[in-house]
Amino acid sequence: MPRIPVIIDTDPGQDDAFAILLALGAPELEVLGLTTVAGNMGLEQTTDNARRIVELAGRGDLAVTAGCPRPLLRAPRPVPEIHGETGIDGWDWAPARQGPTEGHAVDFIVQSVLAHPEPVTLIALGPQTNIAMALRRAPEMAQNIARIVFMGGGYFEGGNMTPAAEYNILVDPEAARIVLGAGIPVTAVPLDCTHAAPAPVNWSASLAAHGGDVMLACAGMMEFFERYGNAKYGTASRPLHDAVAVAALIWPELFTGRLCPVDVECAGELTTGMTVVDWLRQTGNPDNCLWLNGCTDPAELYARIEGALLTLRAPV
Amino acid sequence: MPRIPVIIDTDPGQDDAFAILLALGAPELEVLGLTTVAGNMGLEQTTDNARRIVELAGRGDLAVTAGCPRPLLRAPRPVPEIHGETGIDGWDWAPARQGPTEGHAVDFIVQSVLAHPEPVTLIALGPQTNIAMALRRAPEMAQNIARIVFMGGGYFEGGNMTPAAEYNILVDPEAARIVLGAGIPVTAVPLDCTHAAPAPVNWSASLAAHGGDVMLACAGMMEFFERYGNAKYGTASRPLHDAVAVAALIWPELFTGRLCPVDVECAGELTTGMTVVDWLRQTGNPDNCLWLNGCTDPAELYARIEGALLTLRAPV
Amino acid sequence: MPRIPVIIDTDPGQDDAFAILLALGAPELEVLGLTTVAGNMGLEQTTDNARRIVELAGRGDLAVTAGCPRPLLRAPRPVPEIHGETGIDGWDWAPARQGPTEGHAVDFIVQSVLAHPEPVTLIALGPQTNIAMALRRAPEMAQNIARIVFMGGGYFEGGNMTPAAEYNILVDPEAARIVLGAGIPVTAVPLDCTHAAPAPVNWSASLAAHGGDVMLACAGMMEFFERYGNAKYGTASRPLHDAVAVAALIWPELFTGRLCPVDVECAGELTTGMTVVDWLRQTGNPDNCLWLNGCTDPAELYARIEGALLTLRAPV
Amino acid sequence: MPRIPVIIDTDPGQDDAFAILLALGAPELEVLGLTTVAGNMGLEQTTDNARRIVELAGRGDLAVTAGCPRPLLRAPRPVPEIHGETGIDGWDWAPARQGPTEGHAVDFIVQSVLAHPEPVTLIALGPQTNIAMALRRAPEMAQNIARIVFMGGGYFEGGNMTPAAEYNILVDPEAARIVLGAGIPVTAVPLDCTHAAPAPVNWSASLAAHGGDVMLACAGMMEFFERYGNAKYGTASRPLHDAVAVAALIWPELFTGRLCPVDVECAGELTTGMTVVDWLRQTGNPDNCLWLNGCTDPAELYARIEGALLTLRAPV
Repeated sequence: MPRIPVIIDTDPGQDDAFAILLALGAPELEVLGLTTVAGNMGLEQTTDNARRIVELAGRGDLAVTAGCPRPLLRAPRPVPEIHGETGIDGWDWAPARQGPTEGHAVDFIVQSVLAHPEPVTLIALGPQTNIAMALRRAPEMAQNIARIVFMGGGYFEGGNMTPAAEYNILVDPEAARIVLGAGIPVTAVPLDCTHAAPAPVNWSASLAAHGGDVMLACAGMMEFFERYGNAKYGTASRPLHDAVAVAALIWPELFTGRLCPVDVECAGELTTGMTVVDWLRQTGNPDNCLWLNGCTDPAELYARIEGALLTLRAPV
Repeated sequence: MPRIPVIIDTDPGQDDAFAILLALGAPELEVLGLTTVAGNMGLEQTTDNARRIVELAGRGDLAVTAGCPRPLLRAPRPVPEIHGETGIDGWDWAPARQGPTEGHAVDFIVQSVLAHPEPVTLIALGPQTNIAMALRRAPEMAQNIARIVFMGGGYFEGGNMTPAAEYNILVDPEAARIVLGAGIPVTAVPLDCTHAAPAPVNWSASLAAHGGDVMLACAGMMEFFERYGNAKYGTASRPLHDAVAVAALIWPELFTGRLCPVDVECAGELTTGMTVVDWLRQTGNPDNCLWLNGCTDPAELYARIEGALLTLRAPV
Repeated sequence: MPRIPVIIDTDPGQDDAFAILLALGAPELEVLGLTTVAGNMGLEQTTDNARRIVELAGRGDLAVTAGCPRPLLRAPRPVPEIHGETGIDGWDWAPARQGPTEGHAVDFIVQSVLAHPEPVTLIALGPQTNIAMALRRAPEMAQNIARIVFMGGGYFEGGNMTPAAEYNILVDPEAARIVLGAGIPVTAVPLDCTHAAPAPVNWSASLAAHGGDVMLACAGMMEFFERYGNAKYGTASRPLHDAVAVAALIWPELFTGRLCPVDVECAGELTTGMTVVDWLRQTGNPDNCLWLNGCTDPAELYARIEGALLTLRAPV
Repeated sequence: MPRIPVIIDTDPGQDDAFAILLALGAPELEVLGLTTVAGNMGLEQTTDNARRIVELAGRGDLAVTAGCPRPLLRAPRPVPEIHGETGIDGWDWAPARQGPTEGHAVDFIVQSVLAHPEPVTLIALGPQTNIAMALRRAPEMAQNIARIVFMGGGYFEGGNMTPAAEYNILVDPEAARIVLGAGIPVTAVPLDCTHAAPAPVNWSASLAAHGGDVMLACAGMMEFFERYGNAKYGTASRPLHDAVAVAALIWPELFTGRLCPVDVECAGELTTGMTVVDWLRQTGNPDNCLWLNGCTDPAELYARIEGALLTLRAPV
């Protein structure tokens, strides 16, 4: 089976960490490199976190290239209150053995996409600044992008930062608008989908039972990550948003959704950063996005994620 | 049991007609008068329709006062494609025997509220222009308003005119914003609620079986009204939005909801007219609206509505 | 010569006071009544001020009817830092002998306009809330309005509250938009015009030299009013904005301008409240406003104003 | 005298052509290269035009690197109705002997600025897309930029595309906002300034009299360029906007202006693309832009421009 070549643009974040580890463990994907962006944390921190994560997985060989330190038009909005001081709190991480790869994320994306013999899939786990910049810098790149899968937005569920806006989109709504308007197939993995895919209750204990650094790191982050979310939503369990996005690329059969027109509000007084989903096709705009709104079997989903993580158990 | 004194502000509309008839038939309510507004149809038509409806119910004595012929700031948006040429298509209506009551709806609302010994409840079934104008004209009126119940908006369900906006709010978003900001208890009956309260499949046949002009008119309108909605939504049955709003005032025990902060987007490029519901209380704004999002027993609901309509069976 | 029947809607303010006194002193105008609005000060204060002013002029017989205590959509913005604690600081005013006329400004405007045998001119010296409300309440009124003259806005000069917005428009931009869109001939007297019409340097001394309460009050207010403006603009003299507006109605031959399309920005991040003047007719919108942008002879203008004020010298 | 190292970002345009030729002829400037952007014409055309212009001036050695084919967020808006089919209509141009330099304008700007031993000045004559992209791609570049001089905007004069917006800013308002917010010294040469610097009446005849391809091309373009502008503004002569911007860098002593806070409206209904100039410092924002609003001696200005053009008379 040919593997799907992907570039992961990320701002780790505990759930980014799960997403990256899942991508590295899943035989269905071939990770060409990681690029980092300011988001959950500042750029220096997210880049360092990404290094720690690939090294934990025994993939210190991977390129991790730093990108934009701030959104296209707006001020950065780091959220240490959600992710802890490092962004990947919950595990006692070893320092990264290596700094970021030389060069700029935008160039890495442009060059990797243009150079690859097969169309590449971009996975966006944070604000979409780097990808938007790459699309504007080299629009010809679109022809060799198979798909952009992003975690972000929310329509039926509203937002998690404001009543209308989810974090990744709110931080750089203009970037998301560029991505959705680029004429490239897009899969959106919004809160509508991830909230339908909560991790099993007490999943961290199950992860920890496997032993090994990867699983213990995952168990620790899971525990940390759930604390904030469960308190806010009053639930017994939380979804690993970004990991769900990677899973939706690997196992689309576990998800429901609809191809329809999606755009981003950039000018609202109360709604800036909202993903406006034309679910009923009332606008007459062209379908540009597969909007996922459900997960048919969350238990199976997390079992598969756990399986993929286990393949990374004995690294370095 | 003391009856709840209400003024109904309306732009009939088949579902407005059901709402008015329900209010007239329900012993729980005392209708002080109707006021009309431009909305589904132009003002002259909605006013004439309101007259026909009260006369059908044998309540030609009621004041029906015409109000604003257009929204506060925006252009009118009549929708004959939804409601038919008259707005209450589906029955061969007798011409109104009487014209509208002299005076202006805004004055009728102000004076009726200020003069009434008990606090009055306002029921808004169309764009909220008249009520907003009354609140700005006589802010002291707020002290004798028990509650404003409006049909309008949508959050979890999105909108029915645009992906973000429902008709009544979209037509006059600034008016809705004034109403929600007036410091008066508000109950919103949005699409989130009405879509959870569809009429029984083939309800029109059940209504027609009772015979009599009221029930036959209702049956005819029901049939007409369902045609557009079922085609758009691909359903076997549609909710009578405005009637559900009146029902929510009479039988609150059949509904679920949450008191939370609600506001209206008036400046979005894609989202103008959206009711922005702070369901998770992320904004820190004060709770100003009981937002209904479900109906626990639609069958029971429509049985009760049918019962109330039956009390009007032998009028004129 | 037939006198022009006018209603003055006002939020005094020192320059409102001059405008009112000018209107009362000028034989060309017949003042049908004053209506008051929240603006420079809260409604109670502006109403009391208006009473004091008409009584100073010996016209305690005039109706002074209070209107809207706040703008259509936005919060009030009183500016005691400009006009002093009372709004008409600078003279030791006698308390008003009489309270406001019963009724509401909006009704006064509607009824006066509809009842008058000749078309009436409205002079708007503050935020245009009352007039907008009246136009929405009774659109048929438009047919008996000869013209609306307002002081407000600025295009070539920018604004005085923000770089884009002048006070009267900024406080209630939606009201100004309603007025400009009502299909009624409008004359705008913006900062572009008033800044070209500064009062003579040391005019207050000249006024005071006449003696008498009216002239002494004017002298005191003038002195007070100039202090803030001269400091802000670095000038030796300031225009009496609202008085210039009344003067432009009486002596149009002293002013220059152009009939062109004018609208108000209500949704800008930096420009809300800006009067957008299509001086070069680039929009294709219809001409709706005579936009004054100059005064050909400020010395003559203030000499005429002084002359009109002098006719009020010996009142009460 | 050390020469000022400049990069010219441009979308020729007749007045761009004059600006480029002036820069090449003026001994005060050292042109490091040209970059092109979509604006007056599509990118391919503006790039080809830039090549023709440098070759006409005998500077075919200069790098001319193509950049962004469209604005950051909005659709392109070419204006052949102003500049003719080629953008530099008015002269029978020889085809370019050479295509554009390899690489991308954004990279050229970033690398040239970072590599130069002295701080570089950027001259922006079109929409500021390339420069904004470069600033976001490599924010560290700001430290080696001496100044950004742009032609664009208008405050006291309003706009030339809408009542509020000038072409270069309207086409990519977000880019202009990024430039103004980058913490780099900026000189704005808006319509307020260029309209005060019209070319001499019949200047084209004077240029033609010199003979030689450069002067004849200039004469031809001048004649063409004036036709549209004079008709629109009803004047006998028009300013060469972009050339005035280059002139303002070379001979600042011929211009007046004020250092003050300037920002760009990106969200207005009527005012998007407006440069909002806080001339009176009412916002409290920091001064970020030298806003030129006048030219003290247009005759001298154009005499100097003519002199600089003459140095290019015998090229190729």
